Amino acid sequence: MSKKNIITPRTLSGFMELPPQEQVLFERIKRTLETTYQMYGFFPIDTPVLEYSEILLAKQAGETEKQVYRFKKGDKDIAMRFDLTVPLAKYAAKNYSALTFPFKRYAIGKVYRGERAQKGRFREFYQADIDIIGDGSLSIVNDAEIPSIIYTIFTDLGLSNFTIRLNNRKVLNGLFEMNGLSENATDIMRIIDKIDKIGVEETKSELIGSGMEENTADTLLELMTYKDTNENILAKLETYTGSNETFDLGCQELKDVVYYIGKFGVPESNYRIDLSIARGLDYYTGTVYETFVDDHPEIGSVCSGGRYDNLAEYYTKKNLPGVGMSIGLTRFFYVLNEYQYLNTKLNAPADVLIIPMTDDMSSAVSISARLRKEGLRTQIYMEKKKFKAKISYANKLSIPYAMFLGEDEIRDDKVTVKNMYTGDQVTVSLDEAITVMQESLAGLEAEAIITKE
Amino acid sequence: MSKKNIITPRTLSGFMELPPQEQVLFERIKRTLETTYQMYGFFPIDTPVLEYSEILLAKQAGETEKQVYRFKKGDKDIAMRFDLTVPLAKYAAKNYSALTFPFKRYAIGKVYRGERAQKGRFREFYQADIDIIGDGSLSIVNDAEIPSIIYTIFTDLGLSNFTIRLNNRKVLNGLFEMNGLSENATDIMRIIDKIDKIGVEETKSELIGSGMEENTADTLLELMTYKDTNENILAKLETYTGSNETFDLGCQELKDVVYYIGKFGVPESNYRIDLSIARGLDYYTGTVYETFVDDHPEIGSVCSGGRYDNLAEYYTKKNLPGVGMSIGLTRFFYVLNEYQYLNTKLNAPADVLIIPMTDDMSSAVSISARLRKEGLRTQIYMEKKKFKAKISYANKLSIPYAMFLGEDEIRDDKVTVKNMYTGDQVTVSLDEAITVMQESLAGLEAEAIITKE
Repeated sequence: MSKKNIITPRTLSGFMELPPQEQVLFERIKRTLETTYQMYGFFPIDTPVLEYSEILLAKQAGETEKQVYRFKKGDKDIAMRFDLTVPLAKYAAKNYSALTFPFKRYAIGKVYRGERAQKGRFREFYQADIDIIGDGSLSIVNDAEIPSIIYTIFTDLGLSNFTIRLNNRKVLNGLFEMNGLSENATDIMRIIDKIDKIGVEETKSELIGSGMEENTADTLLELMTYKDTNENILAKLETYTGSNETFDLGCQELKDVVYYIGKFGVPESNYRIDLSIARGLDYYTGTVYETFVDDHPEIGSVCSGGRYDNLAEYYTKKNLPGVGMSIGLTRFFYVLNEYQYLNTKLNAPADVLIIPMTDDMSSAVSISARLRKEGLRTQIYMEKKKFKAKISYANKLSIPYAMFLGEDEIRDDKVTVKNMYTGDQVTVSLDEAITVMQESLAGLEAEAIITKE
Repeated sequence: MSKKNIITPRTLSGFMELPPQEQVLFERIKRTLETTYQMYGFFPIDTPVLEYSEILLAKQAGETEKQVYRFKKGDKDIAMRFDLTVPLAKYAAKNYSALTFPFKRYAIGKVYRGERAQKGRFREFYQADIDIIGDGSLSIVNDAEIPSIIYTIFTDLGLSNFTIRLNNRKVLNGLFEMNGLSENATDIMRIIDKIDKIGVEETKSELIGSGMEENTADTLLELMTYKDTNENILAKLETYTGSNETFDLGCQELKDVVYYIGKFGVPESNYRIDLSIARGLDYYTGTVYETFVDDHPEIGSVCSGGRYDNLAEYYTKKNLPGVGMSIGLTRFFYVLNEYQYLNTKLNAPADVLIIPMTDDMSSAVSISARLRKEGLRTQIYMEKKKFKAKISYANKLSIPYAMFLGEDEIRDDKVTVKNMYTGDQVTVSLDEAITVMQESLAGLEAEAIITKE
């Protein structure tokens, strides 16, 4: 059994590995997403981390391809998924005839990108996606449901000052067509997408650099940077309608989406038409979303998505339009944690620590079974240590209640319960103790996970 | 946008990819494990799927090494984890000074083994592990907590006829020492471990083949196959005590564990000392467990574990004893599903499908928001289809309630609710409808996920 070599334990760089109490907080956030997705009737779908490279890379080229973890096992050319959309496309195409459409699915899983390692960038990270896939067509009301889900999630997590920015690619494409720019649409979209980062002037120079007339650039930028209520922006767009079909359709879609988002109960302060939102990917064809934490634009969009015409064109001839969004959970958690925005009162692994003061632990064990039946997460400190070490365990793990079981308590059929926050300590019957703890813990559980913003 | 080639969508063999409704059931089982682990105060820990090969393969040799997915990325030699124990060992060693001991952690995650593909064997599968790690020492009462967790999980899932079989490696090692067999202990253990598969006679021949005297083999086998109440087996072991320290210690541990398992509320019918349980791995040093579904011994152990002296000897000189268990969740689900033991009434993605009968869907949308607030998983059928197609959607997804919203309902401020199981349909106020659905769904949610055994 003697060991010659100790290998220094280390973790690959770019791979998040949280301390226990931070992991509790991470799991709470993940659970909030899961629960919300389920409340909206989405199916969970769990596809493999590994796929044939041929499948994963059917579309990709350039940057993404270089980042992919790809290897041979036997004679198979295998790659690790780099997002959850490509596996969904494969899944929908493969199982097309067995699926019922519209097919609503959520997926929360790890994806892999061998990016250059840097602070806040991860090579293994969770994406938390939802998509609604239609068979041939899909109602525009779905495009309004997605923002309502985004709103529910961020509100449940405790954020209030966030804005879902909305746009429609048909509006943009229509504008380009009207100005004879449709051939450069992709390039223009890419330039406009940077407007928040580089500013209006720099965007204008880049547009002109791409071959656009100055007055066209002015017209486009004036419209795209126009800030007003959703109603007024829609009214302004209305004045341009009547000359381009794509534009008119885009305006109608945007109008419908705004109308229904309100019906879903999302307050006007949390969503806003922003005609400069383009989303880089050529994948999107209609509604697009980005979500910003108002006081922290530097974080960038924490939740993005949109409408696409054809999910699985590389794997099937079926036309599968869809709408969806994705939360980069690992990065989102990282940022919240760095900013110390998380509610550390919620990071305990247990609600109560039973501390037996006698050698025989049978009372502690029986009581633990009862407490768990009552919904209290219960741990027993079983080690033979000094009292100080036992109570310090509860402190270090920020467990809200300690329950002492000494000879007196056992003889009198009582328990001593200490509130570790207030220091208050009472010796009462087990039933009373349960009531006290349940009430106080319900208050704690009702607290939001994000406490500042 | 025209596509030249369609790539046939396919999934690597040995990688489970479930249809949507089966995935709902899988997630319910996973959630039951998670919730139970949390009720016992375990921390969630999420380590990367990828690690340095040097770390993962510090101990392994032979079979496992061949199965590992291993590749180079840049100059890094990387491997995919093949279990959750090695990453835990690394984690505990790496974070030793920041951790509070005993350190209780659960992990439910995918692991990878490139085994020969065959029915019911998976190359990517979930393990659901718990471990309690001590710093230098760890109370034996922890060894009794693990079976109580196994009991809670299987009972909550709906199983009742299962048996946790217990043994202690010190009892076996002590017996071998008493018979002058300690040098062959590992070989003997391996032979005995197969007793269920190959029978007593064949085991005896193998023991003799390994160099054991026939009468020693008889003595050992008589004891190991002795079936009786836990109390009587302990009494029988007692008669052998007094001559070997290891044996005596093992008997005392077994006695303590049996005593405390009862205190945890586990009925005698669900756990039993079985002196033939050895567990192949040389890793275990004390208590060992296996769990069998009584009517289906052919499945093998569905949950195994035990006590070990030294979790992280390859990564630290610290002595970290622990006790834990693992459920092979993917295989467990696969078996239950194959045997059609799962409660398909629980496989719906939503509790209620709102079917709007008017063009404007704003009533449906507002009502959906209210239903979700009341805890009802709610979907709206938004597509323009014939009524038959709409109701067929609810049927195909086995959604228990459909709610119709026609002009009449909207005018009268009512909703029509149909119970899709019974066909009963009522037109009532929204509040009444919510009450009706909540009551009936509470009954459904109280049903077990495993319905037969």
